[in-house]
Amino acid sequence: MAEKPLIVVTNDDGISSKGIKALIKVAAEFGDLLIIAPDKPQSGMGHAITVNNIIRLDESGLYPDYQAYSCTGTPVDCIKMARHFLKERKPDLVVSGINHGANTSISVLYSGTMSAAVEGAIEGIPSVGFSLDSFEAKADFEGSKVVVRQVIQKMLSSKLPEGLCLNVNIPDIPAEKLKGIKVCRAAKAYWKDELNERKDQHGRKYYWLAGEFENRDLGEDTDLYALKKHYASVVPIHFDMTAYHLISEINNWDF
Amino acid sequence: MAEKPLIVVTNDDGISSKGIKALIKVAAEFGDLLIIAPDKPQSGMGHAITVNNIIRLDESGLYPDYQAYSCTGTPVDCIKMARHFLKERKPDLVVSGINHGANTSISVLYSGTMSAAVEGAIEGIPSVGFSLDSFEAKADFEGSKVVVRQVIQKMLSSKLPEGLCLNVNIPDIPAEKLKGIKVCRAAKAYWKDELNERKDQHGRKYYWLAGEFENRDLGEDTDLYALKKHYASVVPIHFDMTAYHLISEINNWDF
Repeated sequence: MAEKPLIVVTNDDGISSKGIKALIKVAAEFGDLLIIAPDKPQSGMGHAITVNNIIRLDESGLYPDYQAYSCTGTPVDCIKMARHFLKERKPDLVVSGINHGANTSISVLYSGTMSAAVEGAIEGIPSVGFSLDSFEAKADFEGSKVVVRQVIQKMLSSKLPEGLCLNVNIPDIPAEKLKGIKVCRAAKAYWKDELNERKDQHGRKYYWLAGEFENRDLGEDTDLYALKKHYASVVPIHFDMTAYHLISEINNWDF
Repeated sequence: MAEKPLIVVTNDDGISSKGIKALIKVAAEFGDLLIIAPDKPQSGMGHAITVNNIIRLDESGLYPDYQAYSCTGTPVDCIKMARHFLKERKPDLVVSGINHGANTSISVLYSGTMSAAVEGAIEGIPSVGFSLDSFEAKADFEGSKVVVRQVIQKMLSSKLPEGLCLNVNIPDIPAEKLKGIKVCRAAKAYWKDELNERKDQHGRKYYWLAGEFENRDLGEDTDLYALKKHYASVVPIHFDMTAYHLISEINNWDF
């Protein structure tokens, strides 16, 4: 009998978040799970790894039906931990999320959820990050499950080219209103930062990073456009950031 | 009289590190400086930003000739801070480093030094990260200055396409032995992780992230090859991680 697929589950909102609970429910339909997720929120951690400190890993009682560990490290650390524990067995899939809030466009760079998927891709494992386009505290992840199920099913049956991962964003609408799933490119959108300046009780200044996401991209083939039109977006992501098309131009600088 | 170029200086090893001191010396030959760098080592922070905590910024007395601030945030936060303080004036250049240790190949993703440069590129500012290929405590950054000077000079006189930054790695050899500067692609190399498992004084396990960098790429056009041959490497980096060439293939999955 064929072995069941082995699926590593992580996220960046922390092991007890609603999004990972929804993801675990769907992933368990497809295989055995190894859950290693941060013990606290790690949003905005990007591709950070823990180099100047130790990492702890503790068995989590939250998911008694599965092997589950909470980790003091970053989402990327969680993937490295999973590889360490699985040793010779390579997982069949890494799933990360479901993130509380969209990770469209350049948010891939800042997102711990997506960075965990990128790390999976670096390790040669088919990987995917899921995000729900809602920052509401009461966000409902039920509708997302339809998309998660369909993407996991496709990823296990199709062969994702090595080194690639998928960035899946899901509109915050009931499942029956979802128009479908669209393969897209990342929109050219930006965070228009505003640093919120305040003073503490001693009169000393401090700052909160704030800002708005601004889309400057009118393309109809982008992730932001798909979400707006009530589609889930799938963007293929690769980890080699070399701008190949500009190597020859920079060569003309004649160092 | 033309205004002098405005150059933002940051790094990830911290504002008091040897590498940033060398970088400041060279950058000051070309323009006015705004130094905003982390108050502590931030290696391996990747593109992390501080979203769940406040950020502090303090004037630094380390560089009395320049506007200099130490920041409690990540290298990417430092760039966001710089943009906040400069408001309408856009810097002419962001320089990050000189990093203590190479940032070749996929290390761009993990490196705070390079992520600060990538953030500069996102902001539309010509940006560059410099790294010295030495982890030695006594690493000598003197020889690197020749490369830093040449790259900054070219960046201020040539027009780097918007959204691009440069990843410059410098071999750890005396300046007179340096063969030149080569424009390269990132080598396909990987961190072969090993988690170092230990026990604390209470018998409880903890881990250190460790491992070796393994080059699986025999190409002679890579950054790792250039360093080996005593060249400094320049890799153009862009921040859009969309795998455009695979959009049509994933489309065939027929979601």
